Amino acid sequence: MTQTDATHDPSLRSWVASANGHPDFPIQNLPLGIFSHGAHHPRAGVAIGDEILDLPAVLEAELLSGEAAQAVEATADGTLNGLMALGAGPRRALRTQLSALLAADAVPYPGLLRAAADCTMHRPARIGDYTDFFVGIHHATNTGRFFRPDNPLLPNYKYVPIGYHGRASSVRVTGAPVVRPSGQRKPASETEPSFGPCRNLDYELEMGVWIGPGNDLGEPIPVGEAASHIAGFCLLNDWSARDIQGWEYQPLGPFLAKSFLSTISPWVVTPEALAPYRIPQPPRPNGDPAPLPYLHDVADQAAGAFEIELEVTIRTATMREKGLPPHRLGLSTTRHMYWTVAQMVAHHSSNGCDLNPGDLLGTGTLSAPEASGYGSLLEVSQAGRQPVTLPSGETRRFLEDGDEIALIGHARREGFATIGFGPCLGIVEPARYNPAP
Amino acid sequence: MTQTDATHDPSLRSWVASANGHPDFPIQNLPLGIFSHGAHHPRAGVAIGDEILDLPAVLEAELLSGEAAQAVEATADGTLNGLMALGAGPRRALRTQLSALLAADAVPYPGLLRAAADCTMHRPARIGDYTDFFVGIHHATNTGRFFRPDNPLLPNYKYVPIGYHGRASSVRVTGAPVVRPSGQRKPASETEPSFGPCRNLDYELEMGVWIGPGNDLGEPIPVGEAASHIAGFCLLNDWSARDIQGWEYQPLGPFLAKSFLSTISPWVVTPEALAPYRIPQPPRPNGDPAPLPYLHDVADQAAGAFEIELEVTIRTATMREKGLPPHRLGLSTTRHMYWTVAQMVAHHSSNGCDLNPGDLLGTGTLSAPEASGYGSLLEVSQAGRQPVTLPSGETRRFLEDGDEIALIGHARREGFATIGFGPCLGIVEPARYNPAP
Repeated sequence: MTQTDATHDPSLRSWVASANGHPDFPIQNLPLGIFSHGAHHPRAGVAIGDEILDLPAVLEAELLSGEAAQAVEATADGTLNGLMALGAGPRRALRTQLSALLAADAVPYPGLLRAAADCTMHRPARIGDYTDFFVGIHHATNTGRFFRPDNPLLPNYKYVPIGYHGRASSVRVTGAPVVRPSGQRKPASETEPSFGPCRNLDYELEMGVWIGPGNDLGEPIPVGEAASHIAGFCLLNDWSARDIQGWEYQPLGPFLAKSFLSTISPWVVTPEALAPYRIPQPPRPNGDPAPLPYLHDVADQAAGAFEIELEVTIRTATMREKGLPPHRLGLSTTRHMYWTVAQMVAHHSSNGCDLNPGDLLGTGTLSAPEASGYGSLLEVSQAGRQPVTLPSGETRRFLEDGDEIALIGHARREGFATIGFGPCLGIVEPARYNPAP
Repeated sequence: MTQTDATHDPSLRSWVASANGHPDFPIQNLPLGIFSHGAHHPRAGVAIGDEILDLPAVLEAELLSGEAAQAVEATADGTLNGLMALGAGPRRALRTQLSALLAADAVPYPGLLRAAADCTMHRPARIGDYTDFFVGIHHATNTGRFFRPDNPLLPNYKYVPIGYHGRASSVRVTGAPVVRPSGQRKPASETEPSFGPCRNLDYELEMGVWIGPGNDLGEPIPVGEAASHIAGFCLLNDWSARDIQGWEYQPLGPFLAKSFLSTISPWVVTPEALAPYRIPQPPRPNGDPAPLPYLHDVADQAAGAFEIELEVTIRTATMREKGLPPHRLGLSTTRHMYWTVAQMVAHHSSNGCDLNPGDLLGTGTLSAPEASGYGSLLEVSQAGRQPVTLPSGETRRFLEDGDEIALIGHARREGFATIGFGPCLGIVEPARYNPAP
């Protein structure tokens, strides 16, 4: 997975002018997505600069051959599930051929492009199941400390890649309104719960992982083969209603506190595009147990982690009115994953559970150890005790109506182009639900 | 929902001889399912006695009209999702017309039947999301007692219909092999966890609920309207690996302990078929809080519960060899639901979470208060401390390889036919997964 080839050459330029120097989508990225234009059906595309390359149109123009053509044919239903199911071969072939087609020295085909600004993005796949992990050890420690100051990490954390089933139906792409959920809350100061709009609305800075071929029920994926079952990556904001969560989550885990919305960036950044930004899994702190054998693979430990910069910003309604730019709430990296993605996949299927093309995994919140890298307001404001002051003079314990939260991800490495994930944002809207008493 | 009509007449007989007096599928039931015969594509059918009525064939023979025809047309993709999406109108019309078609005084059409024994049953719908609740208060109390003897029910239980997201991909219909899962276990006697076959394998006796039309994201379903979003019911065995569960479940809830398999009965018993067996929601014990207003509906309290008898039996390999019949491990009823199905649906969507046609809800284990009605071996054997003795002389703390567990459900009421859910069984097979060390 750490191999790089001509498609990663940082000097490679495209005849799509906006791609050259683009912060997210230079020719070295070529992420896959599902878009629509006007009243047309959703179809597969590739982000290149400020444009989207229309993949069925490329196929129709007979510019693709062999496995690359097969990859695009598999998107005929307007989703990437079929392409994801094909695994790495066709996806790599498509990348190689598109890189050549879009290179500055190739014949330009501007008729195959759509301005991204004129298009609507859709979920890239039918998400069969969505699983959220908890592999950000600093987030696990910070949030555990609110409950158990002396012993924030539970005994299983360093043995088990902790995860739970999330809600697939309410995953949406960037821009979906964040309607403040209503639910049961019982602050410690009250003796009985009440139903009403969430008071402690929060974001969570995560990376999402798209599953490729997957496994049959009863046939676990060994950790050494897990990488071949990963189709790509996105940003993931696991919006969280902290007051609802605090009251509901025992004994079966988070439920309505998380299921009102999860926002993803719509572009699937492929393992091929991210190959240059692979790093060794950072060593475990002294005294930590070694992973159990079913979670250990030499190659995965050597190059199974990523160097991806993850940022979260806020822009309130007042900040927008005053023309103030977004304010950074946290800057972290994927280095802070205690478990690799391959370990997540191997653990998930170790009981025989079947993973399927288009399934989505979340990493859990990836906070840095220092306060400037916290990935949730719960951590930034210390559960509301230390409100954060914004450039507008406003303060925030938790999110207020009108707040816009953006997640931003970039992979950087000296000697390589910087590539990004594209937008993953949402604006909080007022609660809507007031059932008749 | 409590209305009965001519289709419920207990004196109604069918020209399908095996339906008359059939324990599960007399003409008063008419449950919907997806079956296949030989190499044919899966298609919609209705169970009638020992036969399956081929619905597309009935449509092709022009024996259906109006909304009933529309209901069958909606199954053209070989699932019931489209039919479930249509809501009660077309489903009722189909029931009414099929009841007339199959009645003893109608023209027999034996060519429209397939022997059920020659058919394969499939999942009745593409399950978008599967949510498991915890509304069996005696089960919640019994299992809570293992952890908190003096305070078994957590403070939220009588306010919140507790539930969690389950794994949709690993839901299978009756007969699927129950491959013993492997996973991390850490008995109290050991200082570190190890990975290996589950030692404490268990079943859970639940009812499943199929969602009909559902709601858009951000648009909760009021409790008074929830009944119109329920497409039908099945039996559900939520197989559970107790040792894996005990080690993994904090702080985010059950994950791999439950996701290796969930077995359902393949027939969707409709709300119309169950109308005669509706009962008032049993009154809450003195001192219990009233449901919050968003969970309270007068009509739901008056007739939103069900009288359905639920039974679980075991038959070990030795019992099969000796020709011994299955042995009853528990006999319970759906009366023991602390929350109605409508309350589950209203709560689930109260935060705006979208429910979709073909989503599956589980009730949670429906144990009776007395030991003869426990719905899991965890309760029957008191977490393994009191092994149960079987007619073969064998004892069981938890399930062993070769054990066959069957769930059985019947709705009975004087003056009405008895109807049933059909089979929901599985045989435990040895663990398969032994990853290289």
